[in-house]
Amino acid sequence: MIPTKATIPDLRAALSSGKLTPLDVVEAHLERIRTLDRGIRGFVRVCEQGARNAAKADVHGPLRGLPFGIKDVLETGDMPTEHGSAIFEGARPRFDAAVVATLRGAGAIAIGKTATAEFAGTAPPATTHPLDPARTPGGSSSGSAAAVAAGMAVFALGTQTGGSVLRPAAFCGIAGFKPSYGLWPIAGMLPAAHSFDTIGVVARSAGDAAIIHATMMRMPEIGLPDTLPHVALCRTHLWDTLSSQGASAIEAAFKLIEQAGARTSQASLPEEFSRLTEHRAIINAFERSGNMMGLAARKDKFRKESRSVYQRGLEISGEEYVASRRALEVARASLDDVFGLAEILLAPVVPDVAPMGLNSTGDPRLQEIWSMLHCPTVTIPIGEGLGGLPLGLQLVARPFEDDLLLATARQVEAFYPEAARHLR
Amino acid sequence: MIPTKATIPDLRAALSSGKLTPLDVVEAHLERIRTLDRGIRGFVRVCEQGARNAAKADVHGPLRGLPFGIKDVLETGDMPTEHGSAIFEGARPRFDAAVVATLRGAGAIAIGKTATAEFAGTAPPATTHPLDPARTPGGSSSGSAAAVAAGMAVFALGTQTGGSVLRPAAFCGIAGFKPSYGLWPIAGMLPAAHSFDTIGVVARSAGDAAIIHATMMRMPEIGLPDTLPHVALCRTHLWDTLSSQGASAIEAAFKLIEQAGARTSQASLPEEFSRLTEHRAIINAFERSGNMMGLAARKDKFRKESRSVYQRGLEISGEEYVASRRALEVARASLDDVFGLAEILLAPVVPDVAPMGLNSTGDPRLQEIWSMLHCPTVTIPIGEGLGGLPLGLQLVARPFEDDLLLATARQVEAFYPEAARHLR
Repeated sequence: MIPTKATIPDLRAALSSGKLTPLDVVEAHLERIRTLDRGIRGFVRVCEQGARNAAKADVHGPLRGLPFGIKDVLETGDMPTEHGSAIFEGARPRFDAAVVATLRGAGAIAIGKTATAEFAGTAPPATTHPLDPARTPGGSSSGSAAAVAAGMAVFALGTQTGGSVLRPAAFCGIAGFKPSYGLWPIAGMLPAAHSFDTIGVVARSAGDAAIIHATMMRMPEIGLPDTLPHVALCRTHLWDTLSSQGASAIEAAFKLIEQAGARTSQASLPEEFSRLTEHRAIINAFERSGNMMGLAARKDKFRKESRSVYQRGLEISGEEYVASRRALEVARASLDDVFGLAEILLAPVVPDVAPMGLNSTGDPRLQEIWSMLHCPTVTIPIGEGLGGLPLGLQLVARPFEDDLLLATARQVEAFYPEAARHLR
Repeated sequence: MIPTKATIPDLRAALSSGKLTPLDVVEAHLERIRTLDRGIRGFVRVCEQGARNAAKADVHGPLRGLPFGIKDVLETGDMPTEHGSAIFEGARPRFDAAVVATLRGAGAIAIGKTATAEFAGTAPPATTHPLDPARTPGGSSSGSAAAVAAGMAVFALGTQTGGSVLRPAAFCGIAGFKPSYGLWPIAGMLPAAHSFDTIGVVARSAGDAAIIHATMMRMPEIGLPDTLPHVALCRTHLWDTLSSQGASAIEAAFKLIEQAGARTSQASLPEEFSRLTEHRAIINAFERSGNMMGLAARKDKFRKESRSVYQRGLEISGEEYVASRRALEVARASLDDVFGLAEILLAPVVPDVAPMGLNSTGDPRLQEIWSMLHCPTVTIPIGEGLGGLPLGLQLVARPFEDDLLLATARQVEAFYPEAARHLR
């Protein structure tokens, strides 16, 4: 068992049997960071001594001894929090974000702050894809996904407003989970577009993500059910944006689910859902520019992508914004019909493998639909596409069906024992 | 025209004609603070020099020269932000909260930070009712309401999670407005229970509140319509908690609206709405305790009410919380039926005048229903009850009907030219 590749249940077993100490686990991950992160640049700050001290402390809890990364839009009381922005350089919050404190309270060990697009937006950090330095790892939780994919953290916190957890997780070949809107506590998170902002996690498996979710929700960890729920394939109106390999992988996954005995069907999105992309652009820009008002006196220090969304937002009228909010409510009200008899939707997560270039974190459209609808959503890797790069799928549940979603993802990931072992 | 009593349109007229300068307006309010605030304790910090400097600067904008108060759970870049808590003593945020920056950008002048219940919860600040030092001004936006009622600020920002804007406004005999959930930007606000938290405003009239709302939403200010919308009297399942004077005042208001030519009807809440109080207690405690996780290492410094809600929240299971969130979604989905043909509901806002005692900020149940349902809601004073203390009413609209709500409130407040002139 290699600590920088093992899942939480395996690490727990090694820790409780005494085969590994928390310090062993921390040192293994620090070593990995020293070796790899000069190239990958997943971390903006590593907390070596703090992590060692935490590993030596006598702590208990379900996450004892597990080093995790923290997207740098989440406040930490012992490390600066810079939001990927020059204007927050060296900023020192007084307290940990609620999610960080919850994980620490459960015994997990903060190993560092991970690189984020500025304000969790679209101006990418310096992070590169762990398998190809010329490709984006996705974003805006770029550093979190790259750190977990490269074995530099057991799991890492991210945030998703459009597709900022699911997309980098899919590009990097790891699991990513965004809970239903509003379930995890938000204190200490920088608001971006508050109608969508959701904290989530990237991890080595859906099973690991389920453990983090249970910790956040103060719920018992759930065993794996024997049967799969009813799954509908939802190609979405963006199916044409998929590469043929990407599309085939999703369809093959659907076949596997069917063969495993699940009831299946097809789900299609109502015509008006194709306008969600447009509504999301309006709501996102309006809310972001509103939330940036306090920072705007220093907008000369914003990166160009942030200045641009701020400016676009200011040009949107309140009437237009409210009209988009209303349209979104209508879409949410029809969500139950989209699911129909299905309990879980299988949907594409990204068009293809991580694209070339570090100037963009990729296309958010396939992920943002579900963020807007407040659905919990998970990605797991399902194989390799072009150049051996990871391909993933997306599973989506109705709001508040997070546990069913994670249980299903755990069942489906068992079909892919070889997926995304690239760096493991 | 007395600057410490005048509404925004009157102040604008005096400022633009040159009868008053911004510095005159600021000095008048500072004088009022010097005279009254040792007794009322509405402010935790007054920004004398900053306000004078701002008044001397050459600024433009729809709120030019208007001094406003800021509830101390909203961050300010030039004043500490302490959230009513010892653990934030002297805390200095780097930037203004988005709402504060928006108001300053429109020319308004921050005159000080107003007293808040700890973490916008239930541990009351030292603020007293402007008309009777033995009575609560309401809370948690206690200082904001007292400051506006006593002519120490033209308007003031508050936040409402249960009834923290509407209740103190009603007790203090001023206008209070809570927008639809999620309309105003939230960056720089301390999260309490994020499913409900909403920034709002207390003001000298509903007309003034409408001006603030237009500024926040970057919308033009709206003229007064000629006709009233369809208004339904909604007594709620808590009608029995009203004093006879409180109940009569609401019924008299309904009669005035009817006599003014509005279509009217009666609205009743479905049986299951009576359980909203219980669901709110669960959601509120669970979310607050979650959001307090980062602060919990210093919970020995929490006030007893905050420690108690933190502890209660920790005892609620995730399952119970999610069940209450689901129940609330069901109630939201039936809201349209509650309104029926009506566009506006007339509802009670508080059981009676401000109660005696400074250990509690009063009963939130009549206000929190609408916070939970994400409705915009407004209170205006409608006369006097026991001891000459103010009585108010509450008007409620469907989510996103904020403009209609404010327009209606302006029409209704015109029926009460003499209401709540106590300190004006």
